Amino acid sequence: MSTDQSSPSADADQRIPPLTLGAVLYPGFELLDLYGPLEMFGAIPGQFTIHTVADAAQPVASSQGPRTVADYAYSECPPLDLILVPGGFGTVEALENQVLLDFLRERSPDARVVMSVCSGSAILARAGLLDGRRATSNKQLFKFATDQSDRVQWVEQARWVEDGPFVTASGVSAGTDMALAVLAALRGEDYAQQVADFTEYQWHRDADSDPFARFLNAVDIDQLMGALS
Amino acid sequence: MSTDQSSPSADADQRIPPLTLGAVLYPGFELLDLYGPLEMFGAIPGQFTIHTVADAAQPVASSQGPRTVADYAYSECPPLDLILVPGGFGTVEALENQVLLDFLRERSPDARVVMSVCSGSAILARAGLLDGRRATSNKQLFKFATDQSDRVQWVEQARWVEDGPFVTASGVSAGTDMALAVLAALRGEDYAQQVADFTEYQWHRDADSDPFARFLNAVDIDQLMGALS
Repeated sequence: MSTDQSSPSADADQRIPPLTLGAVLYPGFELLDLYGPLEMFGAIPGQFTIHTVADAAQPVASSQGPRTVADYAYSECPPLDLILVPGGFGTVEALENQVLLDFLRERSPDARVVMSVCSGSAILARAGLLDGRRATSNKQLFKFATDQSDRVQWVEQARWVEDGPFVTASGVSAGTDMALAVLAALRGEDYAQQVADFTEYQWHRDADSDPFARFLNAVDIDQLMGALS
Repeated sequence: MSTDQSSPSADADQRIPPLTLGAVLYPGFELLDLYGPLEMFGAIPGQFTIHTVADAAQPVASSQGPRTVADYAYSECPPLDLILVPGGFGTVEALENQVLLDFLRERSPDARVVMSVCSGSAILARAGLLDGRRATSNKQLFKFATDQSDRVQWVEQARWVEDGPFVTASGVSAGTDMALAVLAALRGEDYAQQVADFTEYQWHRDADSDPFARFLNAVDIDQLMGALS
């Protein structure tokens, strides 16, 4: 570790080999669901190897427009220590993607941490991976997630929820706080604080503090998708 | 506007035509510098058209690894209402990219807002665009920005600084707050709050409140780049 906890250090925790994080992409994923966490995991070079993975090793368009290149097709993805599933308006179609659901079912048992942000937990729920577990999701579209499975203990008020290897975050920006909590668990509190300070991020450390729970189901998903189509 | 200010609305402000935002990409850009703002501008469909632009219309690798596709080469980029320049470790090389500097010099006079995040202000300063203006940058690497020009009034304590059409944010996460402030100026406070609520983002509205100014120049850029190379 650097002697200055506030500074990034290229040689921080050299004893710990880099972990590999696989981030799932699908058309219409939400930009910050993906990139808030990837910023935090990738902020200090050499600590995490980040792979993007999708149906094919091609560019995938986000909900906001910009395209991210998938490094690997699902069938070719290297072993993963961590998995990240973003949400977004594209989740509606992603729920029907059996290759994606199978990938998550096959890879989750070998992963140390499986994370979702926003409506990404709807995908994990549809895959059956959250059965019997506590989980959360985007607040304004909460029903969209709960509709995917009644075998999940959905938590209405939480910035993020940890249950075993599964860590599900609330909407969009909550993924960044979740990522720092996972970093703290894997690398220590000092490391996570060092990342937050370097990225000038005011980290919300309390998983149970959720100022956005008051917007629970403020948006009707069917009405919204109709307006967007 | 939607009657519910907390909800996204596909038909919000239909009277106002979409504005076009061009985000500059270069190898080694910082993910959240780019995607924090793009999330906020793109959260409500139909309000902003987002283009990515780089040396060539090809994938560009971020500092953290993931690659974003540039929609346009600089020479082919459509007219832009807003310009966004991210920072990142790649800024060191980007400062020598005359095509990028010329693009910013040519396009900035026609843009309503020219934004930078983190070390992105070093690029604007090198291009001479901040001469005589107030600006800020990443706090831990502040000297890296100030070294690029002594004709800029560098502000040490600020989450972001507005001076005419130029809006420069502090490090990484500060760009998200800056983007919401720009959204508020362009579309109104209610609109910006609606975006913040939908993305479950705890917006820091005070440009002068900077909890990270205490880390001013905590990192030596030459030492850091040596460690990373």
